[in-house]
Amino acid sequence: MSDTKHEISQSRRAFLSGAAVTSAGALVAGQATAGTEPDKLITEIQPWAQELADGVDTIPYGLPIEYEADVIRRNVPWLTADTISSVNFTPIHALDGTITPQGCAFERHHSGAIDLKKENYRLMINGLVDTPMVFTYADLERFPRENHVYFCECAANTGMEWAGAQLNGAQFTHGMIHNMEYSGVALRSLLNEAGLSEAGDLKDKWIFVEGADASSNGRSIPIEKALDDVMVAFKANGEALRKEHGYPARLVVPGWEGNMWVKWIRRIEVMDHAVESREETSKYTDTLENGISRKWTWAMDAKSVVTSPSPQAPIRHGIGPMVITGLAWSGRGSITRVDVSIDGGKNWETARLAKPGTPMALTRFYLDTTWNGEEMLLQSRAMDDTGYVQPTKSQLREVRGLNSIYHNNGIQTWHVGSEGEVENVEVS
Amino acid sequence: MSDTKHEISQSRRAFLSGAAVTSAGALVAGQATAGTEPDKLITEIQPWAQELADGVDTIPYGLPIEYEADVIRRNVPWLTADTISSVNFTPIHALDGTITPQGCAFERHHSGAIDLKKENYRLMINGLVDTPMVFTYADLERFPRENHVYFCECAANTGMEWAGAQLNGAQFTHGMIHNMEYSGVALRSLLNEAGLSEAGDLKDKWIFVEGADASSNGRSIPIEKALDDVMVAFKANGEALRKEHGYPARLVVPGWEGNMWVKWIRRIEVMDHAVESREETSKYTDTLENGISRKWTWAMDAKSVVTSPSPQAPIRHGIGPMVITGLAWSGRGSITRVDVSIDGGKNWETARLAKPGTPMALTRFYLDTTWNGEEMLLQSRAMDDTGYVQPTKSQLREVRGLNSIYHNNGIQTWHVGSEGEVENVEVS
Repeated sequence: MSDTKHEISQSRRAFLSGAAVTSAGALVAGQATAGTEPDKLITEIQPWAQELADGVDTIPYGLPIEYEADVIRRNVPWLTADTISSVNFTPIHALDGTITPQGCAFERHHSGAIDLKKENYRLMINGLVDTPMVFTYADLERFPRENHVYFCECAANTGMEWAGAQLNGAQFTHGMIHNMEYSGVALRSLLNEAGLSEAGDLKDKWIFVEGADASSNGRSIPIEKALDDVMVAFKANGEALRKEHGYPARLVVPGWEGNMWVKWIRRIEVMDHAVESREETSKYTDTLENGISRKWTWAMDAKSVVTSPSPQAPIRHGIGPMVITGLAWSGRGSITRVDVSIDGGKNWETARLAKPGTPMALTRFYLDTTWNGEEMLLQSRAMDDTGYVQPTKSQLREVRGLNSIYHNNGIQTWHVGSEGEVENVEVS
Repeated sequence: MSDTKHEISQSRRAFLSGAAVTSAGALVAGQATAGTEPDKLITEIQPWAQELADGVDTIPYGLPIEYEADVIRRNVPWLTADTISSVNFTPIHALDGTITPQGCAFERHHSGAIDLKKENYRLMINGLVDTPMVFTYADLERFPRENHVYFCECAANTGMEWAGAQLNGAQFTHGMIHNMEYSGVALRSLLNEAGLSEAGDLKDKWIFVEGADASSNGRSIPIEKALDDVMVAFKANGEALRKEHGYPARLVVPGWEGNMWVKWIRRIEVMDHAVESREETSKYTDTLENGISRKWTWAMDAKSVVTSPSPQAPIRHGIGPMVITGLAWSGRGSITRVDVSIDGGKNWETARLAKPGTPMALTRFYLDTTWNGEEMLLQSRAMDDTGYVQPTKSQLREVRGLNSIYHNNGIQTWHVGSEGEVENVEVS
């Protein structure tokens, strides 16, 4: 709190001297100060205060006001061959805080979004268990539930930046991510119900998980992770999963790449080996300069991005007080610090975290500063509680080369021009 | 984690012996066990896995799947004379976790929901300040921002229960509440910008806050609260406030009655006295048995309710493992403990909190138990970190009589019948 008060007193001086900030001028008893037009929104009775407005329609489910009609998921048409296997990006440039509303939360699907009623839902657990079982949706609701806020990031998020393609917007460079409060049951509960612990040594065991859609999107997960924090979730942000998020139940694999968060989860087989499916060999692996591919690169390393200013959210207010804000996250733990640079990484200032970081969830950072109208090379750099520091793109390329698509957690650079316009650029 | 594992092993025994739980029966290699029909959803290729589904339309903003069409805000038509001044209740019986999606979050309005563009928004701070000021929406965005999850509860929530009216559903008895992550600026920042600290002694000062709608909904707030944790918020759950929640900016008054969370906030006057407006005299005060009204009853005392089972969410699964869940909150701090009774308050069992309570935010509780098919008188009882224990309705009535409408935080009772049906009842 005392930090905030300190920042305010700085802000105030800047506000009162900031020539571009005309609308916040002094105003006494309804009279504008000399040199500015009277503001009719203050000096006259506002039209919306003169009559009753419409009541609130309760049906259908409420939507954002029409003026926010551009705050929606968007796709990149050339990125996928068809909308059947596509991806829709979160408008992170227009959001604040950390929670992503389901209605605009990133989603990726491989064979469309299937329409699966709760009464038709079944989840089988088979393989190396004492008693193979099939659960209905109603069965799942009878197990002890948990609630956790976690981010879900596609391994391909920021992937188009590897070789220098520069999509002009944080929504497109970093929007394959969302952060929701999931409610569901621990997968451990279901595995134990099927008698996993009675089925012998757990060493080197895996689960293979499948969705109910045509793609099935099969993935192998080590048993240690499955028994640790993986959930079968049926609610996000309090309400049922949306169709495109896997209604009525999906897997939540905290900190690990989004492709493993299998939607419409229908089968979990306990095995003594990994399957090495399409989704973990030809896809979602990282081919290095020498042609060898890294596999089992599940955890999403610490990463951050400035969401405002950014190409879709330029500076419109001129010089003076400015809020730089963005998101940071780590699939290996909690964010402990975020630094911001306005000169392309030469100098860094530590940003303020809105809340202390929590494990495998988005953290919002702010830098309350002053813009003098000069061009900036804006960057952010995240650190997590393992001690890891987000690398530059150059550092990543030195290790991984230019063949990769996935797992790009390099530092992003925005160029801010003297008019406040913002572009996606690379710095060497 | 170890607690959860313990509960699971109990659950498992109950599952395998629970006669009513037929669908979770043992199943090996696709063959149903003797005595049950083969489940075609398992033994045959599911139709939704046989063909590609539709892609995901990005426009408009995504909505819940059609099967959840009943998870919406609802009103009680006879409660208010007109929809112009009405209230819409959160479907808390159908939600889990703690976050309330904006689309189904409780809202109360006194002269309709006005349509106010950001460019037409002004916030005046006047009265006992050094420099009266008017802020545009763009100005507000330049102050340091904060993020906090808080509940907003109408003082009239559960009010219809005072004299024994028994609406049949947690949505109607306790749904005048929501819980969202707010992003905005500390009111303290704006007051300091206008030179509050230079305007003399703060002792016995108040602010009077007004909304831009025709009702204006003016309320007085002590300066200590205004400088402590009150926010001018412009985002909820990451995105812009919905029209009905005060777009583009509302007051957030943590822990205090929802009527003070003025929507479309347009003016804040610093005064040396309280205004004693309609909304804090004839309304939102508590008339006692002797005709004297309590006033300045701002903080919402600790309270809880079982959301499932409840009249709109009966038990449908028969005997065996059962999850009892609900919400608890306190306007004076954090929830530390919730107890659940199944015999109308004679015996209590401490529930599991999904997360440790946080100040002035909803806390989700669970009791993982077994239903033997007998009738229950289901209650929950919240405690907060001030040591306060949620009272019974009888205890409240002894102190406040039966004239009150507001501030009913008494213990709620649901009668669960032998078929799992649930009714709102009173116990003496």
